[in-house]
Amino acid sequence: MICTNKNCFSTETIRRLSVYLQNLRRIRETGTHTISSREIGAILNVTPAQFRKDLSYFGEFGRRGVGYETDQLISVLEHILGVNKAYYIGIVGAGRLGRALINYHGFAGSNIRVRAAFDVDPEKIGTVVHGITVYAMDDFFATVREHGIDICVLSVPVEGAQQATNSIVAAGVKAILNFSPVILQVPDTVYIQNIDMLSELERLIFYLNNDTSR
Amino acid sequence: MICTNKNCFSTETIRRLSVYLQNLRRIRETGTHTISSREIGAILNVTPAQFRKDLSYFGEFGRRGVGYETDQLISVLEHILGVNKAYYIGIVGAGRLGRALINYHGFAGSNIRVRAAFDVDPEKIGTVVHGITVYAMDDFFATVREHGIDICVLSVPVEGAQQATNSIVAAGVKAILNFSPVILQVPDTVYIQNIDMLSELERLIFYLNNDTSR
Repeated sequence: MICTNKNCFSTETIRRLSVYLQNLRRIRETGTHTISSREIGAILNVTPAQFRKDLSYFGEFGRRGVGYETDQLISVLEHILGVNKAYYIGIVGAGRLGRALINYHGFAGSNIRVRAAFDVDPEKIGTVVHGITVYAMDDFFATVREHGIDICVLSVPVEGAQQATNSIVAAGVKAILNFSPVILQVPDTVYIQNIDMLSELERLIFYLNNDTSR
Repeated sequence: MICTNKNCFSTETIRRLSVYLQNLRRIRETGTHTISSREIGAILNVTPAQFRKDLSYFGEFGRRGVGYETDQLISVLEHILGVNKAYYIGIVGAGRLGRALINYHGFAGSNIRVRAAFDVDPEKIGTVVHGITVYAMDDFFATVREHGIDICVLSVPVEGAQQATNSIVAAGVKAILNFSPVILQVPDTVYIQNIDMLSELERLIFYLNNDTSR
């Protein structure tokens, strides 16, 4: 459950809004300028009522039975999510996963930009991966400031994860997307999202084995 | 919040248990047979109290100030999570992401086994990727039954995601790990976990922009 100063809603609502946005951007690419409530339902795979409900936490948008302008809807969603300006990402750890993330195609059309990568390996420092320079962790603070890094993606081995996190926090970065299978300790003022396929699968297995109320 | 017939606890508890398990398996590989409460804290990056609390939802394990046997602790965690038997995974969609998932190194040491992959592309059907055969979606039901698939990982393009999901549900598979940026409709009896980097980043950006109570 997330509460802003206006409203409370589930974290799944935020995920749905992000998915709506990704799919509407895709639709816009095909030259679709207006979209009916019914089409929204079909494209986003939710009922028009669910779509309206998700938006309703954030204000009044559109009217029942009347279509939306794609551009306007995208603007509204970008505004709600706060992604109506560019966000700069630093990839901490330029190994196999880190390099794949630098080249991640899913950012196309979004306002998320990978700006810098970091590593401790002298062999990697100074190399350029898909146009992104790999900097030394020793230059982390200066590089974060120079590039205006807002969010760090953590893709280092387990052993180095907390130390890298300490550097990220000390540099004033307030959000971390963590790919390491490790519990990270951060101050309450720093947000973490964890992505770990094995954990997600084991969570599914837990659900499969337990009589969980949903 | 998840509730079993015994207890309620946060979904983060389940993630932590899975991370504990991954790290304890790693420690066992190095030949560590016993482990003190203090070492647990250092290795898992949580306080011994947090560790005991997470386990306490599921029974009484270990005693304050006394060490654990690594093997026993791993068994307890595997038992809690229900991963003390093998689980068989089907990868639905053998594109760039699907092939990377087949070769995912993070499953090493776990009881999770990729058993089959599926695609609709005649060029891919019948090929073998890192030892795993790519089957036709037309043979989905029979192959799921033959290989005893418990969980499907969905890595198809957005356009085909719901149709593939319908096949998964119809085949009786009760858990889906979804990598497509799409809202999937499934019956209440089927569990879904979503992994989508852009959504996770946009969720972080939402947190950064809102005065959320944590």
